[in-house]
Amino acid sequence: MALLSVLTPVLAAVLCLVAGLVLVKSRDPKNTSQGKSGASTTVEHRPWVDQDLQDDTEGSIKGRDDDDDDNADIADEEDLPQMPYLAARYPEETMLERSKEFYTLLNQRRTVRSISPEPVPREVIDNVIRTAGTAPSGAHTEPWTFVVVSDPVVKHQIRLIVEEEEEVNYRQRMGDKWVNDLARLKTNWVKEYLDAAPYLILIFKQTHGILPNGKKKTHYYNEISVSLSCGIMLAALQNVGLVTVTSTPLNCGPQLRLLLKRPANEKLLMLLPVGYPAADATVPDLKRKPLNDIMVHV
Amino acid sequence: MALLSVLTPVLAAVLCLVAGLVLVKSRDPKNTSQGKSGASTTVEHRPWVDQDLQDDTEGSIKGRDDDDDDNADIADEEDLPQMPYLAARYPEETMLERSKEFYTLLNQRRTVRSISPEPVPREVIDNVIRTAGTAPSGAHTEPWTFVVVSDPVVKHQIRLIVEEEEEVNYRQRMGDKWVNDLARLKTNWVKEYLDAAPYLILIFKQTHGILPNGKKKTHYYNEISVSLSCGIMLAALQNVGLVTVTSTPLNCGPQLRLLLKRPANEKLLMLLPVGYPAADATVPDLKRKPLNDIMVHV
Repeated sequence: MALLSVLTPVLAAVLCLVAGLVLVKSRDPKNTSQGKSGASTTVEHRPWVDQDLQDDTEGSIKGRDDDDDDNADIADEEDLPQMPYLAARYPEETMLERSKEFYTLLNQRRTVRSISPEPVPREVIDNVIRTAGTAPSGAHTEPWTFVVVSDPVVKHQIRLIVEEEEEVNYRQRMGDKWVNDLARLKTNWVKEYLDAAPYLILIFKQTHGILPNGKKKTHYYNEISVSLSCGIMLAALQNVGLVTVTSTPLNCGPQLRLLLKRPANEKLLMLLPVGYPAADATVPDLKRKPLNDIMVHV
Repeated sequence: MALLSVLTPVLAAVLCLVAGLVLVKSRDPKNTSQGKSGASTTVEHRPWVDQDLQDDTEGSIKGRDDDDDDNADIADEEDLPQMPYLAARYPEETMLERSKEFYTLLNQRRTVRSISPEPVPREVIDNVIRTAGTAPSGAHTEPWTFVVVSDPVVKHQIRLIVEEEEEVNYRQRMGDKWVNDLARLKTNWVKEYLDAAPYLILIFKQTHGILPNGKKKTHYYNEISVSLSCGIMLAALQNVGLVTVTSTPLNCGPQLRLLLKRPANEKLLMLLPVGYPAADATVPDLKRKPLNDIMVHV
């Protein structure tokens, strides 16, 4: 181990050299084919690369950091200036305390289908969405649109679209087994919370952006990025005592997109009805896996 | 609007009747083909359904709530007992205050590549992972495995695998334009933080589970569910003052899975190096979109 940590800088240096060399070569046209043959040999020696690419719904762009600063937006501009990262540093006892409190808070989160129609302050919803907007995204494309619906007429139109499609789903797409299972679980396609909840938040992923010149700009990892953002939103909602039903309506995306007049590059990822829990709200007595069932330490 | 809200229960009732009728019919074998022809007519009148299904990487299972209680695990058992949902209810001023504080906290999150090797209390990491494990998941399958690596030798093996693949990615998969852009952004495939960070958290999605009878159990929405869980983990890390680089290593999944001895039904979704920021850490001076650029109110 000691030896390795001594070697690390050396290895890094060597890799840098190789990197530089490769960059130079890859810019030289007559080396392209060579590079390609190099690629195929590489793959021959790594069957799992292909295997993995088959699992990869995002094709050849995986592997770029899905974060804030590896930024396609600015790749054609001057480099961004760096600034110092000033972070809160807590004593260990405080860290431990904060980690416990946050776990306790989020462990109380449940999917609640009985949502109260009571009004919720709009500014709270705004802050929840601001918070979701702090998520990292591939090349900092921030490929999300949060449509907040409070108009009862539009909420009801959404309900009718979702329920109609859900009925078709349960009937013809899920097969008898699912229908039976769900029936036994008293789950069906009637979703009163879509009328009751004071807000419906529809989260759209932008599959690509449009550049000033009208060309498409790919949004790398748009689904993963927007899902990360939804995870942060669920935490933000729990933090203020609001509940939701984390749902991904089947096949309703295009209809809801048209209803809400969203452009074609936006696809519905999630629909979150948001409000206070109804006074008589109940949830199934489910348990979560203990730490040792979800974590492995190496 | 008033009329509509009066009509809602009626509509719900009608849909329930239709539902019941459909259930009965769908259990009758001789009606199956009828059901199918019904399906095709339905689709004829909804071109966007097919259009949407083409975008749907998860085939025919979308549309089920991605939540805690619509539960495939228990679908063959007795219904779970319901229990009252007891939630914290805050006064509006408190909600507003909490929503602002949480936004302020998470808005300080940045991807930080300079991670300090200082040790971090293991119990804090455990609580962060417990917190991530509270995320909702399709049919409550909890399809995630969090591998926490602190062994320097294994961390270094991971670094070598990631850097080797990253070099191939930049060279042969991203094309010259990307390589040039990234070079100008001083981003390359040398990732010192994979040695430096006291912990590497590798998040695997379980594409399916194995039932006691050895059969596969599909994990619906496993990628979205695990991404939600990662979003919550990013919030939990920020809450205790730790930093990470949100990364999705290209093509390394299978090699890292073998290195970490994870089963074949687990695919690497994310790799998060976790630690304190280095004293001299800097981040690019990026801005986030303002609320009005990410939110639409209806």
